[in-house]
Formats: sequence, C-alpha cells, structure tokens
Amino acid sequence: MSSALSFSSICFEQGCWFKGERKIRVADKRVKMPSSMSFRVSANSSVNSEKDIRIGLLGASGYTGAEIVRLLANHPHFRVTLMTADRKAGQSMESVFPHLRAQKLPRLISVKDADFSTVDAVFCCLPHGTTQEIIKGLPTALKVVDLSADFRLRNIAEYEEWYGQPHKAVELQKEVVYGLTELLREDIKKARLVANPGCYPTSIQLPLVPLIKANLIKHENVIIDAKSGVSGAGRGAKEANLYSEIAEGISSYGVTRHRHVPEIEQGLSDVAQAKVTVSFTPHLMPMIRGMQSTIYVEMAPGVRTEDLYQQLRTSYEDEEFVKVLDEGVVPRTHNVRGSNYCLMNVFPDRIPGRAIIISVLCVAD
Amino acid sequence: MSSALSFSSICFEQGCWFKGERKIRVADKRVKMPSSMSFRVSANSSVNSEKDIRIGLLGASGYTGAEIVRLLANHPHFRVTLMTADRKAGQSMESVFPHLRAQKLPRLISVKDADFSTVDAVFCCLPHGTTQEIIKGLPTALKVVDLSADFRLRNIAEYEEWYGQPHKAVELQKEVVYGLTELLREDIKKARLVANPGCYPTSIQLPLVPLIKANLIKHENVIIDAKSGVSGAGRGAKEANLYSEIAEGISSYGVTRHRHVPEIEQGLSDVAQAKVTVSFTPHLMPMIRGMQSTIYVEMAPGVRTEDLYQQLRTSYEDEEFVKVLDEGVVPRTHNVRGSNYCLMNVFPDRIPGRAIIISVLCVAD
Amino acid sequence: MSSALSFSSICFEQGCWFKGERKIRVADKRVKMPSSMSFRVSANSSVNSEKDIRIGLLGASGYTGAEIVRLLANHPHFRVTLMTADRKAGQSMESVFPHLRAQKLPRLISVKDADFSTVDAVFCCLPHGTTQEIIKGLPTALKVVDLSADFRLRNIAEYEEWYGQPHKAVELQKEVVYGLTELLREDIKKARLVANPGCYPTSIQLPLVPLIKANLIKHENVIIDAKSGVSGAGRGAKEANLYSEIAEGISSYGVTRHRHVPEIEQGLSDVAQAKVTVSFTPHLMPMIRGMQSTIYVEMAPGVRTEDLYQQLRTSYEDEEFVKVLDEGVVPRTHNVRGSNYCLMNVFPDRIPGRAIIISVLCVAD
Amino acid sequence: MSSALSFSSICFEQGCWFKGERKIRVADKRVKMPSSMSFRVSANSSVNSEKDIRIGLLGASGYTGAEIVRLLANHPHFRVTLMTADRKAGQSMESVFPHLRAQKLPRLISVKDADFSTVDAVFCCLPHGTTQEIIKGLPTALKVVDLSADFRLRNIAEYEEWYGQPHKAVELQKEVVYGLTELLREDIKKARLVANPGCYPTSIQLPLVPLIKANLIKHENVIIDAKSGVSGAGRGAKEANLYSEIAEGISSYGVTRHRHVPEIEQGLSDVAQAKVTVSFTPHLMPMIRGMQSTIYVEMAPGVRTEDLYQQLRTSYEDEEFVKVLDEGVVPRTHNVRGSNYCLMNVFPDRIPGRAIIISVLCVAD
Repeated sequence: MSSALSFSSICFEQGCWFKGERKIRVADKRVKMPSSMSFRVSANSSVNSEKDIRIGLLGASGYTGAEIVRLLANHPHFRVTLMTADRKAGQSMESVFPHLRAQKLPRLISVKDADFSTVDAVFCCLPHGTTQEIIKGLPTALKVVDLSADFRLRNIAEYEEWYGQPHKAVELQKEVVYGLTELLREDIKKARLVANPGCYPTSIQLPLVPLIKANLIKHENVIIDAKSGVSGAGRGAKEANLYSEIAEGISSYGVTRHRHVPEIEQGLSDVAQAKVTVSFTPHLMPMIRGMQSTIYVEMAPGVRTEDLYQQLRTSYEDEEFVKVLDEGVVPRTHNVRGSNYCLMNVFPDRIPGRAIIISVLCVAD
Repeated sequence: MSSALSFSSICFEQGCWFKGERKIRVADKRVKMPSSMSFRVSANSSVNSEKDIRIGLLGASGYTGAEIVRLLANHPHFRVTLMTADRKAGQSMESVFPHLRAQKLPRLISVKDADFSTVDAVFCCLPHGTTQEIIKGLPTALKVVDLSADFRLRNIAEYEEWYGQPHKAVELQKEVVYGLTELLREDIKKARLVANPGCYPTSIQLPLVPLIKANLIKHENVIIDAKSGVSGAGRGAKEANLYSEIAEGISSYGVTRHRHVPEIEQGLSDVAQAKVTVSFTPHLMPMIRGMQSTIYVEMAPGVRTEDLYQQLRTSYEDEEFVKVLDEGVVPRTHNVRGSNYCLMNVFPDRIPGRAIIISVLCVAD
Repeated sequence: MSSALSFSSICFEQGCWFKGERKIRVADKRVKMPSSMSFRVSANSSVNSEKDIRIGLLGASGYTGAEIVRLLANHPHFRVTLMTADRKAGQSMESVFPHLRAQKLPRLISVKDADFSTVDAVFCCLPHGTTQEIIKGLPTALKVVDLSADFRLRNIAEYEEWYGQPHKAVELQKEVVYGLTELLREDIKKARLVANPGCYPTSIQLPLVPLIKANLIKHENVIIDAKSGVSGAGRGAKEANLYSEIAEGISSYGVTRHRHVPEIEQGLSDVAQAKVTVSFTPHLMPMIRGMQSTIYVEMAPGVRTEDLYQQLRTSYEDEEFVKVLDEGVVPRTHNVRGSNYCLMNVFPDRIPGRAIIISVLCVAD
Repeated sequence: MSSALSFSSICFEQGCWFKGERKIRVADKRVKMPSSMSFRVSANSSVNSEKDIRIGLLGASGYTGAEIVRLLANHPHFRVTLMTADRKAGQSMESVFPHLRAQKLPRLISVKDADFSTVDAVFCCLPHGTTQEIIKGLPTALKVVDLSADFRLRNIAEYEEWYGQPHKAVELQKEVVYGLTELLREDIKKARLVANPGCYPTSIQLPLVPLIKANLIKHENVIIDAKSGVSGAGRGAKEANLYSEIAEGISSYGVTRHRHVPEIEQGLSDVAQAKVTVSFTPHLMPMIRGMQSTIYVEMAPGVRTEDLYQQLRTSYEDEEFVKVLDEGVVPRTHNVRGSNYCLMNVFPDRIPGRAIIISVLCVAD
C-alpha cells in the first residue's frame, strides 16, 4: 500500500495562482496549469496546439501511470509524449491497459532509450527505492513530480530506517518540495522536484494541519484508523492481493509500522513545531479504490466541535478539490470514486472534549 | 445494523459446566448443550433420539433464523420442531432459503397458530420493538433466547431513550440475563430469559471486560473504531443496502449515535463499577458477513502491552470459541467467516502508554 | 433489469454527419451534437456560451438521470437547465447524488411545475409504463429521447403483451425512431422522438445486425447468453438487489421471458426480413455496472469465422464507440467500465460451422 | 481454473451402498464412508475411535487441501493423520490457513518424509503434471483419490495434446476410475485409483449424461456457457487473479480451448457411444466460489422439456447431493455456497425443439 497515490501539484514558476485556474488532479494528485514564462514560449511556438506542455511518464505500465494518462487525456494543456516501462518496452499502452485504447499515446520504451530533451516535465511512477537514482540522472531543466515515496522524507536517517536502504540522492533531497498543494502551494510553484504525498498522509494532513496550526486540537493522542482499497498496493502479483484473499473480509496490516507513519508525523510536526507521534492503524478493504481516515482527536481546552468545523470550512472554502461537507453529512468513499476530491467532516464524540474527523479520497486504480 | 447477531448462550439449569462440553454457536450466538434436569427426562423418554431438545424458532424467515437453523442442524441434541414467520406463513423454509433444503424442517406457520407446549425452548428472531409483547405471552416454562435488542438494556429509561418507544415488558426485564457466555456463564445457566448480545457489543466486551476487571486499562478515552459487513442489517429492502450502494465503497454510519452504545457502556460500566463512556464509530463494509473492532486504549500506569496480552490469554485459555492469537498475528475476518469464533490480539501503539486491541467475529448471513 | 440503459442518439436536423463530429454518450447512450437550424438561433443569441443547447431531464433522481448529468457535464454544447423528480422535488441533486456536487445544476422540481419552453430537448428517464402519457403532454417542438422501454416496440400488441398494459400513446409510437445510432443514424437525425434501445438489445444488435444483413449467419438457433451487473435494475429497494443477495453469487433470471426479447427480435427480424426467434438467457452478476453478451451462431454455408470478423471490422471501422478488437483478444467488461464503448470480437467454435461472438458494454450506474 | 475442484467419490470395496448412508463431500467431492473389508480390520483394532480411517493429504497447503480438511473434520469415520506440503514443510496447517486452527492436525511435512504405511487412503491435491509420478511411487495397497487432472483422460494422446507434456504413468492410467459417483458408483467402489472430475465437467455431465443415455437430446450442437468463481484458479499469485483485476467485471477465458473440454467430451461420448463435440465457453466471475453451467440443447424429435425434467428427476431422486429443483425454480450459486450440492433445472427455450439446462455447484475455496 506504500505506493498508493495521493495529491500533488506540479507548478513551473512564480506565476500567479488564482481561483478558477484550470486544474486537474492526477488520481489524487493535483496538477496545476502553469502560466509560466518557460512555457509561454512553447505555447507561442505552437499556437494551434491546445496541449503544449509535453509530459514524460516513467514507469507507465503500473496503475499509477495508467491513471495519470487517463486524467491528462482531458487536460487542456498537457500531452503525454514519452512513456517508459522497462519490462513492457516495445508494447503499446493499449495492450497493457485496454481501457486507454482511445488515447493517442506513444509506444512504451525503455527508460535508457528515452530522449528527455523532448519533454517539459516528467511524472515518475517507478517503485520505491528505484527512483532516486533515476531522477538523479535526469536533465536538471526538467520539472519532476515523483509519485514514489523516495523523496517524501526530509530526514535521511528516517528514510533509511523506514525503507531499509541507503538514500541514493541525498543532495537532491534538499531541494525537494513536498507536494501537498493546498498546504504548500507557494513552495510548490517554485519547485523543480516535487515529492507527491502518500495517500494516507494526504487524507490525514488535509484535515489535521489547519486544526493544529490554529491550536484547536492537542498534539497528543491523535488516533488514526485508516481504511484503504486494494489498488494502492499496485499491480504486482502477490498472494495477499488475490481476489480470493481480499473479497468478503477485512484486516489490519502494518499495525504501527506502516511506512506512511514518518511522513504523517513529519507533516504534523512541521506545523506543530514539535514532535508529534500519532497512532496509525491501516486496514485493507474489499474494494478496488478509495480510502477513509477516521481520526479521533482531543480538542484544546474550551474548543468545541463547531470550531473545528468552521476552521476547516474556512481553510478550504476556495479549494476546488477539498470539500468540507454540510454539518452532519458523512463522507463516503463512494462519492469520490474515480475522482480527485477529498471530502471531510467533523463530528462530536460522546466523550466530552473529543471530536471525530472523517476524510475520504480515492487512490489510484 | 442494530439487529446484528452476536454471542449468546442458552442454558437450562444449574448443571455443572466443564471444559469440553459440547457447544455450538448460532452465528455468533453460543448455544450450550444443557445437562439439565428438565431435559434429562425427555432424554430418557426418547433414548434413541440424538436430538431430544425441541426448539421453536420465532421469526424464522430472516437471516438470523436461517443461521440458527443451519447451525442447529449439526447439533447433536437440538432439533427445530416449530417455526413461525407471519408474512411467509404456509411456505416451506426451503422456499425462503433454498440452501436449507436438505434440512427436515417444519412448515412456517403464523405465531398465533404456534403450539408452544410442543417445544422445550425458543429462539426469538423477531425485529426490535416487536419482541417484548410476544415473549410476554409465551408459557413461562419455556426457556427463551431473544436475539433482538429488546431485553438487552437493564435501564428501562435508557431503552426508551435509544429505541424511541416504551418498554412493554418491564417486569420481564428484571429477570433477564445478558447472554455473554464467557463472562456470565453461571448466571446464564440459571436464566429463563436470555438477551442475546449485539454483535458490536460482543466484539468489544470480550476483550475489554477482562482488562477493565484487572485494572489494566483506564476507563477514559476508550476509542472503538468498528467495521461490519452488511448482513447484520437484515433482509429488509432498503436503498442503503442495495448492492449498487454498498459494493466498492465504505462509510461510517450512526457516528456516536449507534444503538449498541448503551449496551456497550452498560457492560463496561458494570465491571468498572463506574460509568464508562466510550467513543464508538461503526463503519459499513462491502462484505456480507464479518465484523472487526479496532479498539484504542490507554493502559493504567506501569502496565505494558504484554500484560494486556497475558490477561486475555489467561481469561480465555479454556474457551472454545474465543481465541487470543499468537503474538503479532493480526486477526482477520476472513478467518472467522461462517464460524462461531471471536479472534483477538493486542498490539503496542506508537504512542507510549497506549495499546491497540483488534477483535473479529462473524455476524449472521 | 428492464430499465437498464443503452445506446441512443439524439439528433436535431438533417445536418450532415461526418466522422469526427463531437459525440458524447450518456452511459451507453450516444448523444450527438447537432448542427441544427433550430439551434443555430439560440447559438447566435448566446454567442459566448459554450453550452447553448438547454436540456431538460425528467426523472433525474434515478441512476440513469445521474449518469446523464455526469456525461453532459463534459459536453461542450449541452447544459442541463431543468430537472424533475417528483418524489424528491425541492431537493438539490447533490443531496441525492453527492458525487455530482461539483456540477452547477438546477434544483429538482416536480414535473407538473416544469416550464418546457425553457429547454430545447428532453431526456426522459422515467420508469416504464409512466412515460407514454408524459411525453404525449410535452410541447411538440421539443426533441425527446426516451430512455424507458415505452416506445421501443413498434408493434402495439406486442408491447401490450410483454408489458401487460395498454399503450397510451399509440399515435406517437408511429413517429418514433429506434435510437441505435450506428445502425439508424440517418433516421435518427430526422426524428423528433427517439426510443433509446435497451442495454441487452444494444449489445446484441450491434454485432448481429451487420452479420445478418450480409447473410453471413443463419437466422435460426441464435443463442444468446447474457450477463449483466446490478445497476440496470435501478435504485428501487428490492430484496433481490440487496448486497447480501447479490454478492458472491450468480443466477439466471427471466429465462426466455425477459422483456428485452421482443426488442431484440424486432431489430433482427427487420434486417433479416423474416421473423427471427432467439434464445435469450440473462444472468445477474455480482458487479455494479457492465454487461456481456456471449452469442452462439451458426454460420451460413461456406462462411468462415474470418468472414464474420472482417464484416464487423468493416461495419464499425469509422465508429467512435464501437470497436472490434484485434483477433483473439477477449473483450472484458473491465475495459468499458464507466465508458461509452461497445467492444466485440468473434471466435471460432469447436463445432464446425459455428462461431462465438462476444460483446461488452457498460450499463448505467 | 484447470485445477478447480469437483465431485469425486472414494470407495473402498464392494460393500453395499444404500440410501441414507453417511456421506460427505470434499468441496464438490463426494467422499463415501466405506464399509470395507480392509478397513474393518483397522476399525476393530481401534474400537473406541470414531474416526478410524486414516487419511493422508498430499499438497495440503492449497485451497483444495484446506477444503478437504474442513470437510473431513466433521466426518464420523475419517481422520487426517498425514499432511504434506513441500514448500511449507515444518509449518502448522493453522499458520497457513488460520480458519483451520481448531482442527487437531499433524504438522506439514515434505512428501519425501511421509510414511505411507500409517495411512489407509490418500487424497492427492498436487498441481497438474506433478501428480503422475508421485502416485506411481505410492504403496499399491493405498486407496488414492487424485484431485488433479492428471488421470482424468483415458486417451493418453489426448492428455498429451491438451496438457502439453508426456504422460508419466501410462500403466496406472489403465486402472483409473473416473470418480463421478452418481454415474459410476459401482466402478468407483472397486477402484484403487480414482480420478476426481473437474468442476466444469461435473456440472455438465450430471445433467447431460442421463439425457443422452435416454436419447432425449441430440448429440450435436450442445452449447455450454459456463461461469466460475475465482477460487478454482488456486492460490498461486497471478496478476490475472488480483482483486483489482477480478472485482467488478467479467470475462471469458480459454474460449474453445479450456482443458476441461476433452474431459467433458470423453464423458458425453462414452454414453452417446459416438464422438460428441461440444461448444464450451467458460467465464470468470467476480466471486470466490461457485459455478454455473447454462447448457443449450436440441431435443430429439417429439421430446418435450417435461420429458427432460422427468428424466433428471428420476435419475437423481435417490441422490443426496444432486437435486433437481421444482419446476420453474432457477438454481442459484448462492444456494450451494460452501456446500456439496449440485442443483439443476430444465427450462423451455423460445426456439421450438430446444431446452435450456442450468446446473450450479460450488468450487473449492
């Protein structure tokens, strides 16, 4: 589940960001249309083309790659012009994902045969642990959004502890921007390398960061019970992900040891300006896509559930893809299936002083 | 979901209970074979019969009734000789549940046509709210196990608050024994009327009661994130339970307001000898049967996760249907599907002083 | 299942139809963008609007209505300006279908309060049997696409036999055009009232009509084994469509008596110029959307499987939404989920002289 | 799917078979309780044991092995005393299949360490192609039921053609009895080596063999559209069987080339006394267990659907596990889930002279 998709943004310069700008998310990843200098040139040079930003896709034959293709297909400014997939090099994308047959897509090639001078930006959909070296080798002019976990943790020691291997691009790590658009939009605009957040961390940070920032909840005893569909685990053939093993049953996994823990704690600690340790228990659900985080928090003294609700409403009132539902309405993963939304809401707990936050979003198919 | 099944026991006299006695659970309901006086007679009078205790089933055409039939079919001492189902009176059980075609079952009749002098005990599978009056009208010699929620709450006012209607058998309520066998076995043996516990309360009380009794966990801030399959909601045709509404998605429901809350708190408060208020959030899963409670607790000062684990091992070492798994092994609902087991385990939390308890069992099909 | 969706086209005048014209299908319904006189006016009068054809939706709160909204949302020329739903009048569409929350949609009103002078065309998503009278009452200037079965059968007696009630708009029936775009495009262009085909009939006629027309298969012994997801049965709460009844099992239904039979036979008989009687057995699958027809045919003397394949390739080579897959590739419903495609292929049978045709498409969600 | 389970019988001598004898099926495999000479001895020597026939299980860690364990657990005369699983040797069965934790089972060992002198009979649950050599090496005194496809085809050339490898136990093949109990009971009683039928062949031969034998249907143009759950494909990790690939969609596979074809044709040809060639198209369903064959036949001249129905009723009236449903009742896989039944029925077709036969059973979990 560690390769699950989530929000990110790609942003190419300091250009102003205004409400109503055209946006598309890639699965749960938000891809912003830039009004950038660098691209204005290419836009001028190909005046008739509606899709003037050329995208390269590394690792295109997984579920993540397919989802990016599906979403970029409708984007007015992006077109996919380069696709790599080492094991399926030479094949058409249609042969790997028949539902993409209507797209006009380049043939899959090996990454070593890729000519990166022909693209403006790259989405990297490669497995964890393989990405650092490959991105290190890309031309520095390229904007890069990495969808793996390889660049999400600022703390190199923490990365090596949780992922069990040395970090192979320590220098590059320093310039990485964590791609949670709604929270870090200005930084993302200036970034060259964006680390796309994990799915669980997205569903958790979107509601918690504004509440911590406003001092409305305590940092202690944040308890997160998360539930996810299967697609986040990718297309690899593992016994645990067989239909016969998943259907008609649920189970926890990685109790307290899931690799998204340090990413969640990094995000919450940043805003808390103190080390935050969370309780995080993910569960695997018998569904392909979708994720829910049910978050149990203690409110700061004197704070009421309504205060949490109002804070979240205010924080996201101008956001296209994050919606705080009407009071009392329960977010359901059914309502975000295949979409780019994060829906959330706040509920009073029976225990005085506590609140329950529910957020749902969709992971890649 | 409030009509979901759970554990119970039926017990007919003071006879000793020993390890190894033959037991069968009805769905999650434990049905004990009595070594009772009253039945010894009938056993004597029909020496050759293997199934000498005659059972009446009220409300046999729902999922609960079907499950009782299925399980009693293999029981060496029980046979179903009377079945009522008002709306389907005159039909065969096979026509309502074709998978029961191989059973030799009496035809469904209306409850008003039932001759209760021909049975020794009754399982009452009627909807909440309709059961009090019917049980009030049964011969007092009958042993009764009620699977509805109508007799689960000792506090009449609480019943009327949560179920929104007056209690119609207040006198009867006084003699009710709450049928959680593992915890109340001796009382159950002497009971005439047993209130079968709800599914959620069973999955929660089985792990928590021994821990509270041993003063290993705090009474405050018990947070329960529960997940259930659909069958507990019964066979009634509601839009919310349609395949198209349930499949491929999850959602919370009845946040903080689920009717199992007072039942859970009643059980925990009894053993805590103080009012316990819990956080309880149920979620509906895209699966027919199965239930998991993920319970987040604070341990008493100085207590370690291992202490909780050992307490549960000790509490249930002689139990047939409650199993504490080996250390680190995650209970999965897949492993209890269609069975009578409750599997549980304890895990350390990342937050010091906290623990995570997971229990799974199966609700009726 | 009789209300399941399928292909249709709406076409507003004699304007030429060319490859590459912009098309959108509503679920399995194809909605053509007109280049019509009548609309040129309104187009002129609102030069800046990208969505100048105003659509009314009758019966908007069912799955069919929701699907039309979803698809029209992306259509460059249509906008939904009127929505009726008698039982949910006064509600917002978002409250009925939360996934449509991002659309700017009018509030649901009662059909009796609708002002049809404000729309250019109507999609009628009402239940079978209720539609004839309502459409009879609409202004005659309106273009109408009816998604029910009420106008699909030309033969009034046959309608009354299969649907068990008198036809209430016999005069209107005479001008109806059956909306299977690929096969009846020119007629549809001139039609005022289009009867949207059923889902099964679409999946069957698309492959069989060209083969019968070319005399490649015999009219006798056409055997159709069809499989469908649940959504076609609509959002009505029926026990048979509960999750617990559908999940993890399959079953045939309406063996030989499904109401789509006369529609299928009408279409095949038209092109065969003789009465064609088919064997048609639908099966209900544990999935929300999707449909497959596996069709077993006898080829005409001397005809080979390759001839069938070539005929279908040729028939649909210019079609956007009907695709004959590469030789040997099996169409899967997974590949059309949520889309507008019909994929098909032809396979040799082991029995000499026979062939197997598989077609898949998606029914409404 | 070729390793899917199906009916079989194990029978150890000429002992009389009477209605009402205790029977248990292993998944879809019928295991008869023998009243055999050879076992009478062991029965005598362990007079107090209720389970006196000692069973060895080869390949116990797959779904088939687990299912045999589950069913034998309740059998009054069999006990499993030897279990092999090469890759999981040294593990407990509970660690591989936690739902079997309550069974008292021997530890898994490697087949090379097995002492076959300690068992009376063997169930062989090994993969196709590996079984011939292993069974060849077993003591000849052992009764053997092989659940693979390795011994199902009498014709060695046909085996080698369909399975693409030489037959490694040609001599042994000659004494094999095909284990379709209801049709070959007397032969099975005398057999030493029983080849357990495939799941599809069982669901097809049970209805067709009596009809062909009675000359009620034509041998030509038997068209079989079969649908199966996933478990038959075994527990091997293949991309095609991932939850994300199976859920919410259906597809045909192995069109006309499925390995069960020669087995089906062998059985039908035997009784037809002529070469029968069938049309057979299997489909993969999004469910774990269960199978349906929808069979389209031409009746012999003058024969009516009722004649087929009566023939099947008569053929199976004394059978425990094969049931012909009441007229018009559709067999559903839901009704055989986890059971040993084959349910069937006959329906008139719209095309005169044709009939539709539906049979359902359950494949291994």
